[in-house]
Amino acid sequence: MRPTRRKPSLPEAGVPERIVSAATGLFCEKGYAATSVAEIVARAGVTKPVLYYYYGNKAGLFRHLFVRHLESFREMLERVMAEAKTTRERLVLLTREQLSYGRRHFQEMRFILGTVLGPRRDFPRMKLEEPHQINRRLFARLFSEGMASGELRRLDIDEVCAAYMGVVLLASLRQIHQPARAPQADLAERLVDILLSGVGRERPEGDDR
Amino acid sequence: MRPTRRKPSLPEAGVPERIVSAATGLFCEKGYAATSVAEIVARAGVTKPVLYYYYGNKAGLFRHLFVRHLESFREMLERVMAEAKTTRERLVLLTREQLSYGRRHFQEMRFILGTVLGPRRDFPRMKLEEPHQINRRLFARLFSEGMASGELRRLDIDEVCAAYMGVVLLASLRQIHQPARAPQADLAERLVDILLSGVGRERPEGDDR
Repeated sequence: MRPTRRKPSLPEAGVPERIVSAATGLFCEKGYAATSVAEIVARAGVTKPVLYYYYGNKAGLFRHLFVRHLESFREMLERVMAEAKTTRERLVLLTREQLSYGRRHFQEMRFILGTVLGPRRDFPRMKLEEPHQINRRLFARLFSEGMASGELRRLDIDEVCAAYMGVVLLASLRQIHQPARAPQADLAERLVDILLSGVGRERPEGDDR
Repeated sequence: MRPTRRKPSLPEAGVPERIVSAATGLFCEKGYAATSVAEIVARAGVTKPVLYYYYGNKAGLFRHLFVRHLESFREMLERVMAEAKTTRERLVLLTREQLSYGRRHFQEMRFILGTVLGPRRDFPRMKLEEPHQINRRLFARLFSEGMASGELRRLDIDEVCAAYMGVVLLASLRQIHQPARAPQADLAERLVDILLSGVGRERPEGDDR
């Protein structure tokens, strides 16, 4: 049956937030495929037509959650780019924010990662590469500016972005697997040091110490 | 009904392989939860009791696949450790092997990653941290030897392991998202260069050029 798009007669305050919160929780706990609209509306305390009115269907709700998550990440990154001037400062702030986000929202992070990386049929069709590219473009700007200012070596921007994202991803995953562990002081600084200075004792150009 | 563990009367050659191949394909395509034993045995061309005989149930089959995958990774790593002597050579070989594996088996990689990172209820209970720790211990040996020989700076071993695993993971993910793209020549060398030498122009100790 095609859901009607007529607005329910008595919209309550906070209804979209309740739907988003219920759906996020259920998708995180059970996965997208195993979660039904009936369960979402029951947990949110609304009726199905209300959910259909706001999000069209389960797939529309999922896309909304996904885009919203990426959007808030983007805003954080823009703020860091404006706040800090050197590449090292920007990277430390950015890394700290990402680790802190991962600690506060490890369920959501599991869900996003499982979605992007998991079997394709378990979530609605969407251009996952596209939102992923948004983040990559933002990182690319940071690293391009660092190369232009002479703070960074001239390397392939995409490879540097991927290396940075990988270092942060794994550090976040360790937090997800051990959510009870206390946040490690200065972890962001140490990760940025590894990225900027490397783990080897010598530089390949021959300026060994 | 508890499956009987009696061996079927006429075991055919290659039956476990057919079950493993069918299950891997289906889990990768549909996810663990959405795949039924009926589908697996249909694709493998066997009967349910045959699957139950070899793997107990769907969860047992899943654990078998997971452990098998980790085991083959471990063997590869042991071979590289024996083959190459310097830390840089070992890392280049190891990275090349991992990238090549990711290209040849991107469905399996998606499945493994989605499983480890995705919503917890979508796959059978198992100690995921434990197999993950096996890999980490192997990497830790490589990096400890590199620090002992003076090739690497003295840093937190776990953080160096995580940084390396993150760099390789992201490079593998880029391949998974673009499986048709040609393998990039020397990508392994460039990633190892980033890890060993860093992307910054100066070392923090002050030995700038």
